[in-house]
Amino acid sequence: MASGLIKAQTLKGFRDFLPAQAMARERILEVARGVYRSYGFSPIDTPALEYTEILLGKGGDESDKQLFRFTDQGGRDVSMRFDLTVPFARFAAQHLNDIGVPFKRYHQGTVWRGENTQRGRYREFMQSDFDTIGTDSNSADIETLLVIHDLFIALGLERFTIRVNNRLVLNGLLEKLGLADKTSGVLRALDKLHKIGRDGVIAEMVERVGASAEQAAQVLELAALKGASQDILARLDPLLSGSVAGETGVSRLRELFVAAATAGIAAERVELDVSIARGLDYYTGTIYETFLTDDSSIGSVCSGGRYDNLAELFTNQKLPGVGASLGVDRLLAALENMGQIGTASTPAPVLVVLFDESHLGDYLRIGRLLRQNGINAEVFPDARAVGKQLKYADRKGFRLALIAGADEFASGSWKIKDLKSAEQTVVAESALVDEVRRILSKPV
Amino acid sequence: MASGLIKAQTLKGFRDFLPAQAMARERILEVARGVYRSYGFSPIDTPALEYTEILLGKGGDESDKQLFRFTDQGGRDVSMRFDLTVPFARFAAQHLNDIGVPFKRYHQGTVWRGENTQRGRYREFMQSDFDTIGTDSNSADIETLLVIHDLFIALGLERFTIRVNNRLVLNGLLEKLGLADKTSGVLRALDKLHKIGRDGVIAEMVERVGASAEQAAQVLELAALKGASQDILARLDPLLSGSVAGETGVSRLRELFVAAATAGIAAERVELDVSIARGLDYYTGTIYETFLTDDSSIGSVCSGGRYDNLAELFTNQKLPGVGASLGVDRLLAALENMGQIGTASTPAPVLVVLFDESHLGDYLRIGRLLRQNGINAEVFPDARAVGKQLKYADRKGFRLALIAGADEFASGSWKIKDLKSAEQTVVAESALVDEVRRILSKPV
Repeated sequence: MASGLIKAQTLKGFRDFLPAQAMARERILEVARGVYRSYGFSPIDTPALEYTEILLGKGGDESDKQLFRFTDQGGRDVSMRFDLTVPFARFAAQHLNDIGVPFKRYHQGTVWRGENTQRGRYREFMQSDFDTIGTDSNSADIETLLVIHDLFIALGLERFTIRVNNRLVLNGLLEKLGLADKTSGVLRALDKLHKIGRDGVIAEMVERVGASAEQAAQVLELAALKGASQDILARLDPLLSGSVAGETGVSRLRELFVAAATAGIAAERVELDVSIARGLDYYTGTIYETFLTDDSSIGSVCSGGRYDNLAELFTNQKLPGVGASLGVDRLLAALENMGQIGTASTPAPVLVVLFDESHLGDYLRIGRLLRQNGINAEVFPDARAVGKQLKYADRKGFRLALIAGADEFASGSWKIKDLKSAEQTVVAESALVDEVRRILSKPV
Repeated sequence: MASGLIKAQTLKGFRDFLPAQAMARERILEVARGVYRSYGFSPIDTPALEYTEILLGKGGDESDKQLFRFTDQGGRDVSMRFDLTVPFARFAAQHLNDIGVPFKRYHQGTVWRGENTQRGRYREFMQSDFDTIGTDSNSADIETLLVIHDLFIALGLERFTIRVNNRLVLNGLLEKLGLADKTSGVLRALDKLHKIGRDGVIAEMVERVGASAEQAAQVLELAALKGASQDILARLDPLLSGSVAGETGVSRLRELFVAAATAGIAAERVELDVSIARGLDYYTGTIYETFLTDDSSIGSVCSGGRYDNLAELFTNQKLPGVGASLGVDRLLAALENMGQIGTASTPAPVLVVLFDESHLGDYLRIGRLLRQNGINAEVFPDARAVGKQLKYADRKGFRLALIAGADEFASGSWKIKDLKSAEQTVVAESALVDEVRRILSKPV
């Protein structure tokens, strides 16, 4: 009775992941873990639910965070985490004696925000963060750059640019321009450069922030500096001389670009961009944004920066750090836009056709043989018509089908059907693994 | 001001994962994914939140599920998922046209239950499920057994037993004993065998279910059958003859044990246990439980079975299937009890000591060299005293430290300190990777 059924639907702003997309996301997360680990970052995890006070901070503004907030069975005011940074701050304060510093962690997890779904945003998404805390060292800033670089190389996305800046440079510039007391307003306006353009930014700086037209023009001139990082840094030197903040920022950036070159990072992949500020309050030093050359419309796919104090809401111990967050869902969308997500919905290249039910043991055995040799293989569960099984194989994106009937069992051989080329070969069972491997190694 | 701080704490029943434990859990999940994929199971994901109606079913009993339930910003009655089975049923009904059948999926995800924490239970835990739906074929039942087997082998837990039964055998036995109308009550009592013992079960069958003392004794006699599966099956044959359900159950079990032997599964790892019933309503065919020989107290660490209809609440299409769930947190606890969780809290075996800050580029470069050769390596971020850096290395569980100062840079060499044996060697940079690899390949 259809009328008795419950409608199968997801909540607004939530979505299921079907196999092809889930496989692509798993791959991103696995590749990222491999890179994090290669630098000695360790995994941690924290609960999905926290005391609301912890997520909001005292007097925090709930509307900003769009919390999923409720009262639990025990009468506690709880909320689902909206990012992985606040839980990490709470974690660091709570376990400081156990973890010690410096502490390098990565954290991959789901977060929830009740965002307006009309903007195409989801209310549930996955983050993949890494941070080094308990050190001011520029070595950690440089390493953060290297990790971001290695992430995209490992993901097979060779065409990307990491834009780097240092908030101290911006602060120094504004100080030298006599705009130190208007820093927030000026940076808020500057942050909109890509959205509202040069004239819009100048108008906002003059009309809303109270800068002079000349000051605004100077900020924009600096922000527009383009070219090799050494050239930009050389131009910044005289402009910042005398500003401790500014000089420190330039010096740290210079060391970063030298180290990146020493480490063999291609110069075109790292760009000094004096215009990026990444929000107003949180970051205090180096900042990073990453853009894919083939889909820059999607925005930064890996961003982060240095901060002075991670966990000040929870502990008096100062925990400076630096880190970045890979935008997993954004990256997934970019890969989809770029046609880089496979259509196969199976992680196995080989389907063993179940042709003759009385030989079930042999089909299962051959599946195991392939697996023992590192080849993923599925055995079709029902002895349906071969055509139907091959149709299934085709729809799922299997690469090869193995077929054996009375003739093959009599001669101890297997028929291999290449589902792309439709070629068929018959090989002795003793040669099967090698032949399957040979065909799979050929480009499709 | 300490008084201004927010107390860093997790909610009751929730917990953080620190690195050593998080690494162990990641490993379990990764190994499981590898095994699922090797059989052609594809990943899916579903949201943490669902309409409450979907999770509870119409007229469902909330108290059973201990839901985290609330009204969202849009006034919807929503709940956090309490398992991965109900979301899978909803998913299968919703995407049936896209996924087709047979459909093999795995799903690793967090679930939430507001359980009584006094029993040492957590309110947030991770499940790792795999299922084959859309087929009645015994091949899928056999494959489920093989997957469970391969999971534990791949996890390095060689000492385990998978206990198998078939609900049809139990149903057939009760039918033949004249207890068909008392099936639920009898099985509910039988399920308590390991808790309340033989006499307790008989008492319950007689006093509460209404069986005769002789009937109860016969059920227990059958449930207590021990020995080789073929012997038990041979004893069941005459007992079940004439019962269609019972004969089908025996026949499917016989085929399963033959196939397991053909597939090379060691006989002592799979045991026919007529006493297991796994709950009352859901399972309708083969059922599985898995026990670790070295920690049986923790209960079954991988359980599942065959069911007739996954998604009947959501679709009229009948979706029979079979699957199992790996108890990730239970397995983690067992590994802890068995002392099989490493103490290292770093995924990198090598720490590069930052001895001379002016050579930062070289330390970073050598870190990259090791990583490019597949060796995870961390560069310490601060030029602190070598003793402090080595203490850090020791505490985190690094295996080797690399040290270079003026002498080493002058001669192009690196000092390798084995942190377990305290042995030191000096090698030319060109020989570094090979030497590190050689030392790491030695057992500790």
